[in-house]
Amino acid sequence: MLEERIRNPDLAARVMGADEAAARIGPGMGVAMSGFTGAGYPKAVPQALARRMAAVQAEGGTFQVRVMTGASTAPELDGALAQVKGVQLRLPYQSDPILRERINAGEVDYVDMHLSHVAQSFTYGFYGDIDVAVVEVAGILPDGRLIPSTSIGNNKTWLDRADRVILEVNRALPLELDGMHDVYYGTQPPPGRTPLPLVEAGDRIGEPWLRCDPAKVVAVVETDAPDRNSPFAPPDATSQAIAGHLVEFLRHEVAKGRLPKTLLPLQSGVGNTANAVMYGLADAGFSGLSAFTEVLQDGMLDLVQGGVIDVASATALSFSPDALARFRDNIDFFRSRIVLRSQGISNHPELIRRLGCLAMNAMIEADIYGNVNSTHIMGSKMQNGIGGSGDFARNGYLSFFLSPSTAKRGAISAIVPMVSHVDHTEHDVAVIVTEQGLADLRGLAPRQRAKAIIANCAHPDFRDALTDYTERAWRASFGRHTPHLLDEALSWHQRFVETGNMRPG
Amino acid sequence: MLEERIRNPDLAARVMGADEAAARIGPGMGVAMSGFTGAGYPKAVPQALARRMAAVQAEGGTFQVRVMTGASTAPELDGALAQVKGVQLRLPYQSDPILRERINAGEVDYVDMHLSHVAQSFTYGFYGDIDVAVVEVAGILPDGRLIPSTSIGNNKTWLDRADRVILEVNRALPLELDGMHDVYYGTQPPPGRTPLPLVEAGDRIGEPWLRCDPAKVVAVVETDAPDRNSPFAPPDATSQAIAGHLVEFLRHEVAKGRLPKTLLPLQSGVGNTANAVMYGLADAGFSGLSAFTEVLQDGMLDLVQGGVIDVASATALSFSPDALARFRDNIDFFRSRIVLRSQGISNHPELIRRLGCLAMNAMIEADIYGNVNSTHIMGSKMQNGIGGSGDFARNGYLSFFLSPSTAKRGAISAIVPMVSHVDHTEHDVAVIVTEQGLADLRGLAPRQRAKAIIANCAHPDFRDALTDYTERAWRASFGRHTPHLLDEALSWHQRFVETGNMRPG
Repeated sequence: MLEERIRNPDLAARVMGADEAAARIGPGMGVAMSGFTGAGYPKAVPQALARRMAAVQAEGGTFQVRVMTGASTAPELDGALAQVKGVQLRLPYQSDPILRERINAGEVDYVDMHLSHVAQSFTYGFYGDIDVAVVEVAGILPDGRLIPSTSIGNNKTWLDRADRVILEVNRALPLELDGMHDVYYGTQPPPGRTPLPLVEAGDRIGEPWLRCDPAKVVAVVETDAPDRNSPFAPPDATSQAIAGHLVEFLRHEVAKGRLPKTLLPLQSGVGNTANAVMYGLADAGFSGLSAFTEVLQDGMLDLVQGGVIDVASATALSFSPDALARFRDNIDFFRSRIVLRSQGISNHPELIRRLGCLAMNAMIEADIYGNVNSTHIMGSKMQNGIGGSGDFARNGYLSFFLSPSTAKRGAISAIVPMVSHVDHTEHDVAVIVTEQGLADLRGLAPRQRAKAIIANCAHPDFRDALTDYTERAWRASFGRHTPHLLDEALSWHQRFVETGNMRPG
Repeated sequence: MLEERIRNPDLAARVMGADEAAARIGPGMGVAMSGFTGAGYPKAVPQALARRMAAVQAEGGTFQVRVMTGASTAPELDGALAQVKGVQLRLPYQSDPILRERINAGEVDYVDMHLSHVAQSFTYGFYGDIDVAVVEVAGILPDGRLIPSTSIGNNKTWLDRADRVILEVNRALPLELDGMHDVYYGTQPPPGRTPLPLVEAGDRIGEPWLRCDPAKVVAVVETDAPDRNSPFAPPDATSQAIAGHLVEFLRHEVAKGRLPKTLLPLQSGVGNTANAVMYGLADAGFSGLSAFTEVLQDGMLDLVQGGVIDVASATALSFSPDALARFRDNIDFFRSRIVLRSQGISNHPELIRRLGCLAMNAMIEADIYGNVNSTHIMGSKMQNGIGGSGDFARNGYLSFFLSPSTAKRGAISAIVPMVSHVDHTEHDVAVIVTEQGLADLRGLAPRQRAKAIIANCAHPDFRDALTDYTERAWRASFGRHTPHLLDEALSWHQRFVETGNMRPG
């Protein structure tokens, strides 16, 4: 193992146990970790750190750190540290249930931000120092450069900016990952910044390895543990209907000459609905497609394997255990068709706009005027964070937002009079899709949008109440550009908070 | 006049009166006009069209058109057409009082959108056809190319996409404008799009003239009328205090090494507050600055003339009559220091991100968590539109939002529990400034943002009520990440609608 994975002798000499490595991390530090969804996160050191924290707390002390990641969702990272109340600040995207609970108890300062903004915010010096970076890699080259893992995320920035580095070398990762990554080292703060030289989704503009100053490496920890991405729910009738509406729309746009036959690079957000839409595309008769996205989930892997997608660019491989096995079994095939990049590049506004991505993201709710909430339950509880949805929705060729029209067995409508939190404004939302249908909002004024969204997207159980609201708002609103009844606009959410149901009792 | 301004004989033969030209425009047409703020709009044809509309209506007919502009605010365009109820749809930014009244009466379908998205939405075919373009120019070259006016806006796209073209040649425009413009013809729909080759604010990447197929020109109208930009309010104590806080912050960022001494390209939004901030910069000891913005107002002209700004890029010259005279008197000096571009380029996300603009925009209100409303009064009445604020705030190096802390003689607080409309989400707002002070929101979680905004930006008359809201929301909110009381969050606005005052009676 040592000879195969850790080929730099100086770094091989720094191999130690996770507990010893975690001892390099002290209270109050800024700790930047690898990991994007359940891919490429450190498997051992965060848990060792959590044990240290628990021990300190058992003696009456406190031990918290600031935790920065790519967009980790791993229980072994976020869950372990949140369990012992060891997280003072966390950014960006998360979805571990224990961490989420701490955030919504007001115990963790959670900073939700566009994924494309994370690396630059640290590079610009806006977000304080990084004391320690903990980064999982597949191997270490003789000159100290690193073979990245199943995600890159912000690792380039963490390694560049951290005072000290702890590396986890995970033997469970296939060494055949080597060559799949493309790490771009041309970014820099302004002034004097030059164009990013990427013009097609699959272009390689960087180098396959991460640079790392060996003098900063204070520990190397060997691990042998798989990524833990959850299985996806199989597409159900609802998600199949959403996919069906979307495919019909794409075909229509091709027929109208507004999209090429090979479409434009697909971006597909995190989660079951986005994943299911990819399955819908598999049977739609498209070919020669490409993807420029942040995560590759099972559905997109299928499209690559099935020859529907020629090339896919992302920052993480977010596969279920089954898909991961399939990926490993065919890794040479995939290595020529998949490029993994830093998330500052996978989500870069310049590239998303240039390529003209088709941005397909899940939402929590939309309002009748087309504002979208991606993050907050009833305006106050954080779900996962905005992720890259804003990077792609704002700058893509078309922005789609997808959701079942109801949640909680019909108690919640995904279409509401006014969203309880806005992540994507009316200016950034082109198309809304539920299993009921699709609302094409391009070029529509607010009242036209309301008609389209209520008629096409709202669940029939809520449609009349929404229409009633718009009619009463038209009569009584302060202004008639975007008619609202301010004392009623959020009443559906308030009713849910009070009764567990948005419907009148 | 003919020989000097209209040097193409074919087009000289198509000179006619405004009424005759306006007869080329029929009911239901899509009419794309030049004009960005009060600069470069057609002076005669819109008014002739309004007279035709009035005549048709006097006989019981209807006559409306769809009106697209750069971001016109001209009474002679928007006001004249709105006065006769001739506008069915209007996009994007506007501020003419009569048009605004029609929009808020629900009589005009107003589509508010990012200024950088307008041209591409038509090029992609998303927004329907353009039947006629009406474009003001300073002159026509022998080969039919056009010397642009005091704004470019979307003129390139209008001329490219329209079926027919009406040109207004305005002899009141100085011919010395020739050479100040830079029209980029490398944009195209994806796929295959290449990087925009601009790396410094003053780079010229296009050509000085607009191309126009002479076969499409159905009329040439001669005019002799000045642009009509309003004078700016002289900086008062409030705007001087806002400028003071901003200058102090910029100096602090330079001292910390987070900004170079020459800062980064300035963007300054439309209006008195943004204009006043520029005056504040004049005395701040900075030099060697640059601007990459959408409009040049009086304050920025002063900075150029005073040698504080070396080069300024924009899409429009939005000068008061006094400043316009000064500009004309020194036009050779300014021609080497000012570049006018298409608004798709002046506001392009790729360029704003690359250059790292300092985005300074006015706002209507911000909430305690840092969401910003730039467009809607009390959630329903449209003020002017989002303009380019989103283009710059999202993609710039730092996004500042500026406002006096109160409006309507203290009846309205610019800091509220929840904004009544969101144009810039918490993810896109770095710094909020009022005359009370400055809140630096970088890296802060929602509850930390609330503390900073209330303490630094809210007016003392509203501060206790805001703190009281946050404390009660902390205790009673559904979740504690972004605590809110949904039945009270918009009550300040509702109270204003009912009583004319946000304060409890």
